[in-house]
Amino acid sequence: MAAFSFDKLVIFGVGLIGGSLARALRERGAAGGESGGKAVGNAGSNAGGGARKVIGVGRTTASSARALELGVIDGAAALDDDRALADALAGADVVLLAAPVAQTQPLLERIAPFLDARTIVTDAGSTKADVVAAARVALGARIAQFVPGHPIAGREASGVEAALPDLYVDRNVVLCPLPENAKASVERIADMWRATGATVHEMAPPQHDRVLASVSHLPHVLAFAYVEQILQSRDAALRFAFASGGFRDFTRIAASSPEMWRDICVANRDALLEEIDSYTAVLAALRAAIEAGDGASLETVFARSRAARADWQHRAAQPAAANGGESSK
Amino acid sequence: MAAFSFDKLVIFGVGLIGGSLARALRERGAAGGESGGKAVGNAGSNAGGGARKVIGVGRTTASSARALELGVIDGAAALDDDRALADALAGADVVLLAAPVAQTQPLLERIAPFLDARTIVTDAGSTKADVVAAARVALGARIAQFVPGHPIAGREASGVEAALPDLYVDRNVVLCPLPENAKASVERIADMWRATGATVHEMAPPQHDRVLASVSHLPHVLAFAYVEQILQSRDAALRFAFASGGFRDFTRIAASSPEMWRDICVANRDALLEEIDSYTAVLAALRAAIEAGDGASLETVFARSRAARADWQHRAAQPAAANGGESSK
Repeated sequence: MAAFSFDKLVIFGVGLIGGSLARALRERGAAGGESGGKAVGNAGSNAGGGARKVIGVGRTTASSARALELGVIDGAAALDDDRALADALAGADVVLLAAPVAQTQPLLERIAPFLDARTIVTDAGSTKADVVAAARVALGARIAQFVPGHPIAGREASGVEAALPDLYVDRNVVLCPLPENAKASVERIADMWRATGATVHEMAPPQHDRVLASVSHLPHVLAFAYVEQILQSRDAALRFAFASGGFRDFTRIAASSPEMWRDICVANRDALLEEIDSYTAVLAALRAAIEAGDGASLETVFARSRAARADWQHRAAQPAAANGGESSK
Repeated sequence: MAAFSFDKLVIFGVGLIGGSLARALRERGAAGGESGGKAVGNAGSNAGGGARKVIGVGRTTASSARALELGVIDGAAALDDDRALADALAGADVVLLAAPVAQTQPLLERIAPFLDARTIVTDAGSTKADVVAAARVALGARIAQFVPGHPIAGREASGVEAALPDLYVDRNVVLCPLPENAKASVERIADMWRATGATVHEMAPPQHDRVLASVSHLPHVLAFAYVEQILQSRDAALRFAFASGGFRDFTRIAASSPEMWRDICVANRDALLEEIDSYTAVLAALRAAIEAGDGASLETVFARSRAARADWQHRAAQPAAANGGESSK
């Protein structure tokens, strides 16, 4: 496990992703927090004392209350409270944005006036080209402080209650370093993720967005569309009543956060449209084979898919580093 | 649990579905089998002695060897061996066809000359209109002996090694009784499935095929098409390397049997084409919303899907009988 220590980590949006990072660092010894749960409003008052604190920032004080109660964070601040926000950010080593991607620019604009020159900001957004563009607008000349990132780990459950200390173990984290980033800044964020058990890779933002459009965004859209199609049928209740195990797994991701996926679809529009179009073409070809009763073609495609899926399953059971991609290690 | 006893059950195709029935009846006391595994070829030689035997019939003697070894069946016969087949079928109470649906007609044609007048034949095919048509051709005037059925339970794993004694617990079994069936014959098959822990429903074949096209056949086609679309991309290996948990569940059914799904697609062509077309229309509408950057529409559809999926999950956790549909109980 990589070494990573810090005095203060500030997480904007302590839900599944931010909460899991906090829990992972805490359980692996990087974060302190004797007994978790300082009173809301005292955020960061001990900052700089080497206390290894994790501070959560939510839209309101209430939104961090549960995270405090669970001991996931040591202190909390509300985004709309200037003093609390300034306190929270003072002396921060790392700031993580873990909110739906459309909030990147307003969040960074809100943070910028209080941002220490030594603080490194990173994010956990599912798209990267739009996040980089937003960060450039919001941070201007301070863009070097922003290291774009994406931990590829999720559950259909959301919120801090769903946060797990081992969510990132053997998972992939993609960093998309900017030309302006100091090498040390990128390494620091990479070390943070490695400390959670993840494997860190580097990609350019457009490559990241193409790959994720394919293996994550497209299947979410397909699953949402599938449930919607049943809902539009006249006998939806009867259909649901006879849905079984295959249906359950296929539609699990259709229970994901509508707000998060709305943002992803809008943010990664071009790459996603390309995937939808090529998927639609493949589906049309299968449709034609079904209409023609062309069993041989169907079996060929099905057998190829089965073999590829089995091969993927086999590789996925190996350590993450063996999964290919470009590792920054 | 419903009462069901028999002297001899003959299963054509002792794989996941047939093997799980045999194991369920055995573990629930309906089937005997002191120490499983009589020598291949002795099939049915003790028939009529009230021995509650399960006989497996495979394409060759070798294909039943593993089922015998595992104690799933008490005896085995090869389809191409006239004497063994006659022995197996002599005095059978129930015959279950558990082979890909395209084999229904040749199997029944092969069975017909050896079929006792008192034997009830049923099947486990995933489609019903085509199976009924095949049975009418193969059995002619003896069609009253055939009670079409479909246990809605599957795994992507296939073969007798994947058979589970509790595969049918709280699952739905659909029977599609024919006008010619005696009520007692239908009840006997219903009792057999209830003895495995399943809930039995009745539907007309076209209704069954429409419902299953929607909740089972379409998602399989969509999942196969999705993996195929990745395989057709230039950077398939990179994509697979960054696929994660959502991908895993969404594509699980793309590892299903190519032969079985080829047959289902061909057999249920019309209902499946209708589902593909209406799905394609829904996907096109989502595509348009993504292209237009219409986040509000996307969020509405995603939220509706999420709510419906959550509601389904909640109902699925209830006893099967509460799931709606037309119960024959």
